[in-house]
Amino acid sequence: MPILGQNQYGKSENRVVKITRDGATHHIKDLNVSVALSGDMEEVHYSGSNANVLPTDTTKNTVYAFAKEHGIESSEQFGIHLARHFVTSQEPIRTARIRVEEYSWERIETPGEDAHSFVRQGQETRLTQITYDGSSWEVVSGLKDLTVMNSTNSEFWGYVKDKYTTLPEAYDRILATEVSSRWRFNWTDDAQEAPDWEESYRQVKKHMLGAFADTYSLSLQQTLYAMGSRIIENRTEIDEVRFSLPNKHHFLVDLEPFGLKNDNEVYFAADRPYGLIEATVLRDGVEPRIPVDLTNL
Amino acid sequence: MPILGQNQYGKSENRVVKITRDGATHHIKDLNVSVALSGDMEEVHYSGSNANVLPTDTTKNTVYAFAKEHGIESSEQFGIHLARHFVTSQEPIRTARIRVEEYSWERIETPGEDAHSFVRQGQETRLTQITYDGSSWEVVSGLKDLTVMNSTNSEFWGYVKDKYTTLPEAYDRILATEVSSRWRFNWTDDAQEAPDWEESYRQVKKHMLGAFADTYSLSLQQTLYAMGSRIIENRTEIDEVRFSLPNKHHFLVDLEPFGLKNDNEVYFAADRPYGLIEATVLRDGVEPRIPVDLTNL
Amino acid sequence: MPILGQNQYGKSENRVVKITRDGATHHIKDLNVSVALSGDMEEVHYSGSNANVLPTDTTKNTVYAFAKEHGIESSEQFGIHLARHFVTSQEPIRTARIRVEEYSWERIETPGEDAHSFVRQGQETRLTQITYDGSSWEVVSGLKDLTVMNSTNSEFWGYVKDKYTTLPEAYDRILATEVSSRWRFNWTDDAQEAPDWEESYRQVKKHMLGAFADTYSLSLQQTLYAMGSRIIENRTEIDEVRFSLPNKHHFLVDLEPFGLKNDNEVYFAADRPYGLIEATVLRDGVEPRIPVDLTNL
Amino acid sequence: MPILGQNQYGKSENRVVKITRDGATHHIKDLNVSVALSGDMEEVHYSGSNANVLPTDTTKNTVYAFAKEHGIESSEQFGIHLARHFVTSQEPIRTARIRVEEYSWERIETPGEDAHSFVRQGQETRLTQITYDGSSWEVVSGLKDLTVMNSTNSEFWGYVKDKYTTLPEAYDRILATEVSSRWRFNWTDDAQEAPDWEESYRQVKKHMLGAFADTYSLSLQQTLYAMGSRIIENRTEIDEVRFSLPNKHHFLVDLEPFGLKNDNEVYFAADRPYGLIEATVLRDGVEPRIPVDLTNL
Repeated sequence: MPILGQNQYGKSENRVVKITRDGATHHIKDLNVSVALSGDMEEVHYSGSNANVLPTDTTKNTVYAFAKEHGIESSEQFGIHLARHFVTSQEPIRTARIRVEEYSWERIETPGEDAHSFVRQGQETRLTQITYDGSSWEVVSGLKDLTVMNSTNSEFWGYVKDKYTTLPEAYDRILATEVSSRWRFNWTDDAQEAPDWEESYRQVKKHMLGAFADTYSLSLQQTLYAMGSRIIENRTEIDEVRFSLPNKHHFLVDLEPFGLKNDNEVYFAADRPYGLIEATVLRDGVEPRIPVDLTNL
Repeated sequence: MPILGQNQYGKSENRVVKITRDGATHHIKDLNVSVALSGDMEEVHYSGSNANVLPTDTTKNTVYAFAKEHGIESSEQFGIHLARHFVTSQEPIRTARIRVEEYSWERIETPGEDAHSFVRQGQETRLTQITYDGSSWEVVSGLKDLTVMNSTNSEFWGYVKDKYTTLPEAYDRILATEVSSRWRFNWTDDAQEAPDWEESYRQVKKHMLGAFADTYSLSLQQTLYAMGSRIIENRTEIDEVRFSLPNKHHFLVDLEPFGLKNDNEVYFAADRPYGLIEATVLRDGVEPRIPVDLTNL
Repeated sequence: MPILGQNQYGKSENRVVKITRDGATHHIKDLNVSVALSGDMEEVHYSGSNANVLPTDTTKNTVYAFAKEHGIESSEQFGIHLARHFVTSQEPIRTARIRVEEYSWERIETPGEDAHSFVRQGQETRLTQITYDGSSWEVVSGLKDLTVMNSTNSEFWGYVKDKYTTLPEAYDRILATEVSSRWRFNWTDDAQEAPDWEESYRQVKKHMLGAFADTYSLSLQQTLYAMGSRIIENRTEIDEVRFSLPNKHHFLVDLEPFGLKNDNEVYFAADRPYGLIEATVLRDGVEPRIPVDLTNL
Repeated sequence: MPILGQNQYGKSENRVVKITRDGATHHIKDLNVSVALSGDMEEVHYSGSNANVLPTDTTKNTVYAFAKEHGIESSEQFGIHLARHFVTSQEPIRTARIRVEEYSWERIETPGEDAHSFVRQGQETRLTQITYDGSSWEVVSGLKDLTVMNSTNSEFWGYVKDKYTTLPEAYDRILATEVSSRWRFNWTDDAQEAPDWEESYRQVKKHMLGAFADTYSLSLQQTLYAMGSRIIENRTEIDEVRFSLPNKHHFLVDLEPFGLKNDNEVYFAADRPYGLIEATVLRDGVEPRIPVDLTNL
């Protein structure tokens, strides 16, 4: 008889918006929360008995109830509350994994005292994933859809040439990418003091953008490593960073047929294919735990 | 024999990025340009004779060549150059329509003097459509994907109730929408002085957001009219504004089954279905020209 | 004071699935229904008074109730029931427009007698739009996302060459497009017998594919006209057909640098930019009513 | 100094279309090919030296050249040719991973002898991933976007109830899902005879649909296990199957407020949230190798 391997289930993409009122000043948290539970679940697969199954609908209800009961200080803190609840309240559940996408909003400035108007910021989507097995925590946060460009200070030459190589070397090119990144915290234990999750996110993003801008790049791999190592060096709470960086090609358009010289001015922004550069940067001595694939085809 | 009606052709979605250098300070324009030409094109449809057809590939080349020859001051100015060229250089072409999507970039602040690093801003996509028939211009600009929310100061009650009505009245609700808007300039003639396209865009967006935030709303229709009329009243260069405003429903979650009171705090952000409110606001005495449908199903 | 122009409102994208049982044999209709109503709606825009406003939530409820009360024979018939109801039951509503997307399902063949298992067919999405003003009907049906390819019997040469033209002529190329089409019925009056909507759709699709396959093409415009005229000639219930046909470019890859000859075998399928060919084909003597833009940028 | 961990690079989403001519009968293979290479790549990350880097542009050229040199018998066979080439021809490259998406086309039937007209089939996307380290092969194939529904023969009851549970039990419901699946072949060695990749795919899909249709379901987990075990039992070339099955909820609409009885006829098809059921089914005695996450949030 075929054997059941790893399995998990839960409710995905619970969209929860939490308004907190500080007088006439409102604050928003806007999340997309996905719950995945695993444990003693053989019977439901083999015979359809749901005796050990907490319905996915209940996990959805729990997300909304916890937004009220615990508030949403940060995506990480909210995910920790949820994961702890599922593992400690239901005997058959051994592990809970909570994933959160967070969308950020800016205030619309208005003349009066009121502050309840917002415009969605739109730059990147913030991510976190909390995993709890009843004894130790794994917190991996991240972001996606952060698109950046250097309009100079990028070269690409000195590479291997085989019989299929036609690419000319480049000594001044645009370097653009849409950053997808995940970073793992070394906080694993309730006995440790937890990081300031909100401040940590702001600082990681700042270092990531700073390293991208500052690096004179001979390859996107070099820029990737610079981004990762700056985070590891500056943020002691983080041990591992993974990047998936599509090389968003900007090809210099050949204007010579029209009697024009293109002095690194006019580019065609291509969609596909694209180079894809992926790597992990680790604190020395640390074992990697973030999966290799951040994005699926 | 079946008859040929309205027809147009051209190259769509030419992605052009233009870098302008001011010493070590670079400026970016990042556009998606679509060309549609019409005129004396019966033969190509009836017999396949391409004698009057400028290839769509040529219209693409023209976009890139013009980015060099004319630069890109604004999407509107760039579209005007292109439309004039097609209509005046090719006898069979009677009308040209140029559509542009523009993506905005912010600078990444770096310690040095260099300024060539950017992060895509991501809030909304700017739009323009230029139509030229050899004598007069129609310029319709706009934006899409601008998501806004008021977390209070919105009500909905006093509506018609028929046998299919179950909606309870609301005296304090979230009002959220993703603005899609187009506005038409009254500049039509080369003899008139053209508006400052860049300043006009900034001001229209400011008034749109301001009216959204300031309006105590009894219906999304009322908010829409407030947004449109503030633009008409403040911007003399604009005669007509069209909005397509999905009512992005945020439903208050019923927490009573869990012994909790939801005091307008925890919402479920729904995807579909959504209310869709669409209307035009016009300067008095003006004929409407913007089409009814800004978005297709 | 700025003036209110054309306006409409309603609930968009109501997803309704209707199961009909014929013993152990089940039938599915799977629709996405959008309602847009217009009429005497000045006050809700100017003052926020909802006295003439039937809530969009009610229009949603009506869609679901009508699926039970009237069944869903066809998207067209279902839209006609809805439009008639809104215009005749609410005095301030003068016009109703119902749009439907329909997704088709095939049976999964099983050994037993039961027939309740389906796989989504996925080839194209069927469309219809019903408009009613209390006296006459406009029915425009259509489809989108139908991707077709001829791997030969397509040429492109003899076109205009200007200073920006670099395209070489082609005497054997791939012709591929993703058909978006709308066709208008000449049924406008309850006194006329209505077409068999289901059979009409099957026949229109058959003629469209047949004309695409049979036409030796000197331009995509010629193929478009052939597709449209075959429908007009064969289907007396239809007076007008509009197409929006992106030319999905397949570029022959240059393999000479690798010592290989590409004898029309290996192609790069490009995403953007793409040619876009749009036109209407009409029965002689008929006025066009389908809007020019089927797709928005 | 931070340490470089796992890394890979290559060109993603190379869209290749291959036409094979058998007289007037043409055959199409339409693929999206992604290459990821890894090996001795420290220097390019640490210093930007590209001395070991075969450009991603070259990997793209190789895809197109190989389509000519080797043809495309199947996605699996094509990926095997590519992976072998990269690992054996470049000393610093230790491992190659080739991913392929394949789109299927049906013939448009025409009266004549010619057979060069096609319509994209659209039902599911076929997938494969080939990994080669110079000595052994891992072939994981799969599919995504295959949407299926049973309109009856599904129940859900007898589950755990905690303080957040409000879901009523269901004794006759719609069961619908969009199948994403991957299966691993036990072919690992050039000395073994390779499976018939095309026939294997057809058979796996047939068994998957058959098990979905035949299973009277007490939970989606039970249906998942039935689908996986039928594949393992019938296809000796496959040792492991992973599924990611969103429970596409179809909620029975409450029509009682309108005086109507909904006898399992009218459903609301919801988008989000959705249950997500994921599991692996293994041949007894086999170690799992397919990653847990087939889809990313």
